Amino acid sequence: MAKTAALSPSVESPKITLIGVGLLGGSVGLAAKKRGVAGCITGLVRRSESIDECLAIGAVDEATQDLAEAVEGASLVILCTPVGGMKDMAAQIKPYLSPEAVVTDVGSVKASVVADVEPILPRFVGSHPLCGSEKTGVAHADADLFEGATCAVTPTEQSDAEAVAKVNEFWGVLGAKVVNLTTEAHDDIVARTSHLPHVVASALVNAILGKPVAGESDFIGTGFTDTTRLASGSPTMWRDIALTNSEAIQKAINDLQLELSELKNALDAKDGPALENFFKEGKILRDQWLEGGEKK
Amino acid sequence: MAKTAALSPSVESPKITLIGVGLLGGSVGLAAKKRGVAGCITGLVRRSESIDECLAIGAVDEATQDLAEAVEGASLVILCTPVGGMKDMAAQIKPYLSPEAVVTDVGSVKASVVADVEPILPRFVGSHPLCGSEKTGVAHADADLFEGATCAVTPTEQSDAEAVAKVNEFWGVLGAKVVNLTTEAHDDIVARTSHLPHVVASALVNAILGKPVAGESDFIGTGFTDTTRLASGSPTMWRDIALTNSEAIQKAINDLQLELSELKNALDAKDGPALENFFKEGKILRDQWLEGGEKK
Repeated sequence: MAKTAALSPSVESPKITLIGVGLLGGSVGLAAKKRGVAGCITGLVRRSESIDECLAIGAVDEATQDLAEAVEGASLVILCTPVGGMKDMAAQIKPYLSPEAVVTDVGSVKASVVADVEPILPRFVGSHPLCGSEKTGVAHADADLFEGATCAVTPTEQSDAEAVAKVNEFWGVLGAKVVNLTTEAHDDIVARTSHLPHVVASALVNAILGKPVAGESDFIGTGFTDTTRLASGSPTMWRDIALTNSEAIQKAINDLQLELSELKNALDAKDGPALENFFKEGKILRDQWLEGGEKK
Repeated sequence: MAKTAALSPSVESPKITLIGVGLLGGSVGLAAKKRGVAGCITGLVRRSESIDECLAIGAVDEATQDLAEAVEGASLVILCTPVGGMKDMAAQIKPYLSPEAVVTDVGSVKASVVADVEPILPRFVGSHPLCGSEKTGVAHADADLFEGATCAVTPTEQSDAEAVAKVNEFWGVLGAKVVNLTTEAHDDIVARTSHLPHVVASALVNAILGKPVAGESDFIGTGFTDTTRLASGSPTMWRDIALTNSEAIQKAINDLQLELSELKNALDAKDGPALENFFKEGKILRDQWLEGGEKK
């Protein structure tokens, strides 16, 4: 899709506010500044040391610890705080929001966040840019983090059409491929594609490094390192994701356990063709998918 | 460990033979040539096209499809063929081997290989350099593949001490960290550190890409890609590994399933502290292990 230099008037905002300026918030700031989306990007931070850090990195034009100052006059507010605290944050910013302000977020689960926030902020539309990292903090923020990434936007029947259009357009301008779907469809899908790989990575680390066998450490190589990369993510963020998407994650774990059970049966029976088929299916599916991904 | 320029006479060989010249065989050839270990590296290949390819890459000095020609006069023969075919290969090369020739291999499992080959070739000592890749073929061979890698060497009570010393020294000269252990200890350890990550990667691909949900493909990102990298490995190689190390792999799968069951209980109970602890343990263990690895 060709990008035009002139932004749509609905995206050009005199002031965009980031509630929380970590990896994602900071990347939104850098990306929006690079693309000239806003007159001013303001960041709300928790710790006073973060003010200088955010400014030095250039993730925001202004950083403050004052909620009212952060939110007042903003036409777009993006909640970049942990999923578990979205409801409280929505209630806290509500008194200072302009009536026309559109609010979105970057949370990894959507049903609970939208159910929590929409009744408080009617012009809230949930988002989830899929470009997380096991890294955290504004120091790792990247102006091109959203370039080519999928960004889910999850309007409801109650959503304001203008607000939905603005949120869709915002992520599009930042380079993301925007996909609209229901909160439930979103949560079921990411339980499989994102949350399952994460819990498997953590389970693998806990099963091996948590219960080590003597002499084992010399035998842990790049295969283990890559397979478990996600386990180095933020424990509190993943606790919140697990709590708010527990049923879909359980279902995804069951799907994986079914595969592992079938494999154990094949191992029990020393069934060469079944074992080869298990590994062949995995290789073919993954290689085809990688090729498809590169074609995009 | 400081490396000396002059090689030990026990390692300097007039002729080293590689039985099979793929990723590992080719890397042994490149590494041995780079370090001046042998007067001549000879490779036995299956397909006539491979002769030119191996020579062009410089993995061998001579390549042949003739078993007798490949093996005759070699002081060290390295079996770089699939684990499932080692026994047959040992029987085939036996008539052409010099009595003093030492034989080793690069197979990923050791108990079955050593049990198969040692009775046929008394001067056989099992090896396993831990530097596989999901890539295959001599085109991906690398002269420095063994540099810093662990190489398991698994002598038995029957092993010839001189042969063991020669094999240990060979891998050491190629840059590997050589560890001697029993075949059983080796197989139990690699079931956990290498085979488990591999089967989990394949199971994850099969559970997600094998049973896709509509609209899901846009939501598969780098987390899934990295966690499943190993699934792109050779299906026949992994079938052989699974067949020859089935019990240890089943035990390792059970260890993982225990972690997943505990996680499901915590999800069921929406137990925030237990969930946080699960992710925290994974993060701390992995980060500590990475730091330790970097210090080495």
